[in-house]
Amino acid sequence: MEIYSTDDIIYALATPWGTGALSVIRVSGQGCIDMLSSVFKSRKKLTSVSSGTAVYGSLVNGKDIIDNCIATVWKDGHGYTGEDAVELSCHGGLQTVEAVLEFLPTLGMRQASRGEFSLRAFLHGKMDLTRAEAVRELIDSRSESARATALGRLEGNLEKQIRAVRDDILNVMGTVEVQLDYAEDETEPDIEFPVQTVRTAVESLNAIRATYRTGKLYGQGARIVLAGAVNAGKSSLFNRMLREERSIVSSREGTTRDFIEAQCVIDGIPVRLYDTAGLRDSSDDIEEEGIRRSRLLFEQADVILWLADPQNPVRDSAIENDPRCICVATKSDVSDKDIEGFLSFSSVTGKGYDELCRAISAKLREGLPPVPEGTLVIQSARQKECLDRACQALEETLEHVEEGLSLDIVSIDIREALDALGELTGEVTTDDILENIFSNFCVGK
Amino acid sequence: MEIYSTDDIIYALATPWGTGALSVIRVSGQGCIDMLSSVFKSRKKLTSVSSGTAVYGSLVNGKDIIDNCIATVWKDGHGYTGEDAVELSCHGGLQTVEAVLEFLPTLGMRQASRGEFSLRAFLHGKMDLTRAEAVRELIDSRSESARATALGRLEGNLEKQIRAVRDDILNVMGTVEVQLDYAEDETEPDIEFPVQTVRTAVESLNAIRATYRTGKLYGQGARIVLAGAVNAGKSSLFNRMLREERSIVSSREGTTRDFIEAQCVIDGIPVRLYDTAGLRDSSDDIEEEGIRRSRLLFEQADVILWLADPQNPVRDSAIENDPRCICVATKSDVSDKDIEGFLSFSSVTGKGYDELCRAISAKLREGLPPVPEGTLVIQSARQKECLDRACQALEETLEHVEEGLSLDIVSIDIREALDALGELTGEVTTDDILENIFSNFCVGK
Repeated sequence: MEIYSTDDIIYALATPWGTGALSVIRVSGQGCIDMLSSVFKSRKKLTSVSSGTAVYGSLVNGKDIIDNCIATVWKDGHGYTGEDAVELSCHGGLQTVEAVLEFLPTLGMRQASRGEFSLRAFLHGKMDLTRAEAVRELIDSRSESARATALGRLEGNLEKQIRAVRDDILNVMGTVEVQLDYAEDETEPDIEFPVQTVRTAVESLNAIRATYRTGKLYGQGARIVLAGAVNAGKSSLFNRMLREERSIVSSREGTTRDFIEAQCVIDGIPVRLYDTAGLRDSSDDIEEEGIRRSRLLFEQADVILWLADPQNPVRDSAIENDPRCICVATKSDVSDKDIEGFLSFSSVTGKGYDELCRAISAKLREGLPPVPEGTLVIQSARQKECLDRACQALEETLEHVEEGLSLDIVSIDIREALDALGELTGEVTTDDILENIFSNFCVGK
Repeated sequence: MEIYSTDDIIYALATPWGTGALSVIRVSGQGCIDMLSSVFKSRKKLTSVSSGTAVYGSLVNGKDIIDNCIATVWKDGHGYTGEDAVELSCHGGLQTVEAVLEFLPTLGMRQASRGEFSLRAFLHGKMDLTRAEAVRELIDSRSESARATALGRLEGNLEKQIRAVRDDILNVMGTVEVQLDYAEDETEPDIEFPVQTVRTAVESLNAIRATYRTGKLYGQGARIVLAGAVNAGKSSLFNRMLREERSIVSSREGTTRDFIEAQCVIDGIPVRLYDTAGLRDSSDDIEEEGIRRSRLLFEQADVILWLADPQNPVRDSAIENDPRCICVATKSDVSDKDIEGFLSFSSVTGKGYDELCRAISAKLREGLPPVPEGTLVIQSARQKECLDRACQALEETLEHVEEGLSLDIVSIDIREALDALGELTGEVTTDDILENIFSNFCVGK
C-alpha cells in the first residue's frame, strides 16, 4: 500500500483533458509558492501578494515562455488542501497543457495521485471523510438529485449528524466508565444505564442508513438493457430515449455485432442504456463474443426492456418472468394488436413513451423506503457499512444491558459503535481506508 | 450578419466539457460584479474586493446552494476582456456545470457566442487582431512548434513588425501628401520619392509571407492516407504509427466499411491519419459509399502511403505516380523481396519505420522555403491575404513611381497598402471581418 507523503509538492491538471479556452493546473505543498515564483515573471511577485490574489504573468523556462497565465496564490492554509498552493489558469490548448505538465516536474514537483489534493485537505483538517467523499460524489453526480444531496454532504450535513450521535454515545460511554470506576472501588453507584439515549442514536443512524439504496440509485444510477428479437424495434426505442432524455454523455459505439451504450436520465435517475445485438445462437466466433457480452449485461441489468413486435412476436418466458423485466409491444402505429401484459409503444408517434418511462422509474424504485423531503441521503457503500456496524454494536449494547451482562462487555459494544462512527468521519482511520477512498477520485482533486 | 453588442453581460464555460476536479465559468460585462455579488454568499463581498482577488463562497439561488466555488474578480479593465469580469471556479462535475449554466441566464446574462470574450478584448483595445487570432491558434495548436509560434504572435511579435512597417509607409504617405499639397500650389518641390523605404517594407512583408506554408503545415497539420489492396498491411502500419507517435486525440472509428481516422505528430508535424478500407469496385451500396468517401480522402490528402505486399504485390500506377505518393513494401520480415522504388517496412520488427517517417516529413516539407531560427511565422490565411495585398500595392507603388505616373495615382496605391496592413492588425476593420475571425473561436474564449 502506498502511504501518501505530504512533504513534497504535487501538481495535476484539475480541469478536464481537452481543448477549451482555459485549463487549470493545481500545485500544492509547502514551498510551492517560492518554487513557482522563480519561474513566473509578473509585475507582483507571487511570494509578496496576499492569499487569494490572482496574478497575471508568464511561466518561463529560462528565456522561453511556456505560457502567459493567471496564478492564484493560496497561503496560510487558506487553499483547498490547507497547504501553500497555486492554481495556474493557462490557455486551454492540449499543447500548452502538455508543455506546462512537462515543465513542472523539472522543478522538483511530482504528479499528484488520484484524490491526493483532497487527501491532503483531510490530513490537514480542512474536511472530514464524509465531506471528502462528497467532493467525489459531487463531481461524479449524473443527476440533479445526486448533485444536490452530495453538495449537502459537502456542506457538512452528514458530518454534523454523525458527530451529534457520536457525542451522545461518548456521554453514554462516560456514564459507563464512571460505573466501572465505582465497580473497582466495589461500591454500587445508583446510575441507570441511559437506554433511551442509545435508542435515539440507533433511530437516527437507521434513518440515514435507510436512504442508502435511494442515494445509490440517484447517485450511481441504473443499468437498463434493451432486448428482443431482430427487428423487434430495439434501436428505434433506444434512439427515442436518447432524443427525449437529455443525453449528457455521447453514445459509445461498439461494433455492430456487439452492443451500443449511452447515458441518459429518466425521471431524475441516471441511466446507462444498452442496446444489445440480440441473443440468438450463432456459430460465428465474433457473434458469440457479442452474445457472451450481452449475457453479462443481462446479469448486471437493473431493468430489462423486452421488446416484441405484436405482428410477429418472439417470446421468451424466462426473460418475461424475470422480476426486472418490463415487456413492451412495439410498432403500435402499424397495427392495433396488443400482447397481453405488454406495454404498448410506437417509435413513430411516440405513443406509450411516457407510460414506459413511468414504468421504468417505478420498477427502479420498487421497494425503496420513502425518503422525506429534506432528509440527508447517503450513497457511499463505505458510509453505509460504517453505519451498519455502529447500529449493530448499539443494538447489541441494548441487548446486553437488558440481559444484565457485565458493564465491561457493554463498554466493548459501545467502543465498537464509537469506532465505526469515528471511521465514518475519519477520526479513526487507517492508511488502507484512506487509500481505498481517495484512489477513486480523479487526479487533480 | 450578427453585430456583437458589448452592452450586455455574457457567460460561458471556459474549460473543456467533461468531468474533472474543476470547471471555470467566465462572466464578463459592465455590471456583472454587482449582479453576481447578490447571489454569491461570501465573507468578503465581490463588490468590495480589489481587482484580481479570489473569493471563496457559495453561489445561491434563493436558499438553494448551486455550488461552493471560488470567484475571481476583475475590475477597472484588468481582466481579459477589458470589462468587469468574474471567473467562477466550480466543482468539475457535469451536473454542477449544468446547474450553474442554467442559473446564470435567469439573472439576465446571455450565453456568449464563439470568440466573444476575445472580440470584446479586441474592441476594448486589449489586443490587436493578430494577437486575438494567436489566442485561437495557441488553443488549437497540435504541435510544439505551432504552440511556440502562436505564443510569439500572442506576445505581439507580429503586431510589432506590422506596425513598424506601417509607420514607415505612413511616413512615405506623408511625403507624398506634402508633394501633392505643393502641386496644388503649382510649385515643384524637390523631394525625391523614398523608393528605398518602400523596398525595405516589401522585403519585410515578403519575409513574413514566406513563412505561411511552413506555419500552416505545423499549425494546421497534414492529412496522410494509407492505401493499398486488402491485406497489404495498412492496419498494421496505422497501429504502429499511433503507438510510436504520441497520439494526442483518440482514434475515431467509422464502420468497418468506411475509414478510421486518428491524430498523431510526425517529426513535429501534426498529422491526421486515415486508414481506408480499400478502393476496390463493388456493387454493394454500403461499400460504394465507403469507397466514395475514400476517394474524397485521396483528393484531400497531403501524402498517400501506398502499401504493397512484395509476395503478392497489387500495383496501381496512377497512385504510384502521384507526386504525393510514398510507396511502401510491407511485411519485410516475412520475405526479403523488395519492390523497385518502394521503401521497405516490417510492422513486426519495426524495421524501416524511421526511414518512412523521414520520407513523410521530407515529402510534407517539399518546396517549403527555409525559415531561419527566430523568424516570425504566420499560419493564418487571412493574415497571408492581407500581406499579399499590401505587398502587391507597394510593388505597384514602385512601378508607378518608376513609370513617372502622377502622385495622385501613387497615393492610391499607398493607401491600399496601408488599408491592408490596418486590416491585418484590426485598425481598419469591418463587422464581416470580425465575424469571420471570431466565429472560429471556441465558446468561452
